[in-house]
Amino acid sequence: MVRRTGRRPGNPDTREAILIAARSAFAEKGYDGASIRAIATGAGVDPALVHHYFGTKDKLFLATMNSPMDPLDVIEEAANGSRDEIGIRFVRTFLHIWDGPGGKAGVALLRSAVGNEWATKLFREFIVTQILRRAVAKLGLDPAEGELRVVLAASQMAGMAMTRYVIKVEPIASAPAEALVAALGPTVQRYLTEDLPGVFPEA
Amino acid sequence: MVRRTGRRPGNPDTREAILIAARSAFAEKGYDGASIRAIATGAGVDPALVHHYFGTKDKLFLATMNSPMDPLDVIEEAANGSRDEIGIRFVRTFLHIWDGPGGKAGVALLRSAVGNEWATKLFREFIVTQILRRAVAKLGLDPAEGELRVVLAASQMAGMAMTRYVIKVEPIASAPAEALVAALGPTVQRYLTEDLPGVFPEA
Repeated sequence: MVRRTGRRPGNPDTREAILIAARSAFAEKGYDGASIRAIATGAGVDPALVHHYFGTKDKLFLATMNSPMDPLDVIEEAANGSRDEIGIRFVRTFLHIWDGPGGKAGVALLRSAVGNEWATKLFREFIVTQILRRAVAKLGLDPAEGELRVVLAASQMAGMAMTRYVIKVEPIASAPAEALVAALGPTVQRYLTEDLPGVFPEA
Repeated sequence: MVRRTGRRPGNPDTREAILIAARSAFAEKGYDGASIRAIATGAGVDPALVHHYFGTKDKLFLATMNSPMDPLDVIEEAANGSRDEIGIRFVRTFLHIWDGPGGKAGVALLRSAVGNEWATKLFREFIVTQILRRAVAKLGLDPAEGELRVVLAASQMAGMAMTRYVIKVEPIASAPAEALVAALGPTVQRYLTEDLPGVFPEA
């Protein structure tokens, strides 16, 4: 299973202080500009403690965003198995998380990523610098095509999240997850691994 | 071509007064509850003038939302031609509007539809009561399947709008429109008209 981010136990005050310092550092300096050292200083703790509570900087960022999932974990789970079912596994894992207790946090994340300029910018920087290249590698995609393929798949999943969880339009809002896996799985599969004439030059 | 909504000429003060009254009526009473008569009273004008400036209530609603398009016009344009190219025509028309001067208004609309509760609710009510059934009819879809088909297509377009125009993630943000038509056209076509095993019972 995919581990939810930001659920590590520990001293809640220390953890909260680090999150507050991290939020303000990311907002002020962007993802790249905010250092673990500066965040630790802001929280009045040792940098080792930041790593202890949150692991890497990208996990810390996802925790400040209250992300219900690490997209790279979902991709890793999807990549793990037969290649022609990546799309189905990806959509199934995504829906499993969002249909569960993580969904509320996901909606809040989407609302903030769309609702205010700095969150949008930060989110974009995080996706471009942290997610895309690693997703392409995990999926074993052609580097010349991989990033557009991954963002196309992300566009379908973002739109699903919008319609099912944020705007809650029927009949998608209460459709059984497996019906949506059957509908969207082939879309994500096509974007990630199939020939896309008109998008990429033919081989 | 699809006509942009809310660009009718006329007395700007009257038009603005109607829009202000309409926004507050829709926010307070929802789409169904707000009547043209009450909006006219709120603006201090005759109901006939509301019709003169905005046409029908759904056009008035789209104008209060600053919508760059009437989704039913886009659907009508897509439906008009060979049935196996509905997807391509729909995506092309959508991108043409959002890549043009209407894009800015589209982003503002998406931000508000996602960013605050009452706008989300209003938006949902409008889609469900005004758009879905009429879209199903315009596209000539099986009534038992049509609404889910249309919302699946909408989910892909909403996600495209999010990634290309709101979050502006590369490489989708600056991809040529025709590459995206080639990528998304078949997705929308499949959702609207093709067999979807696992989604609907097989015929």
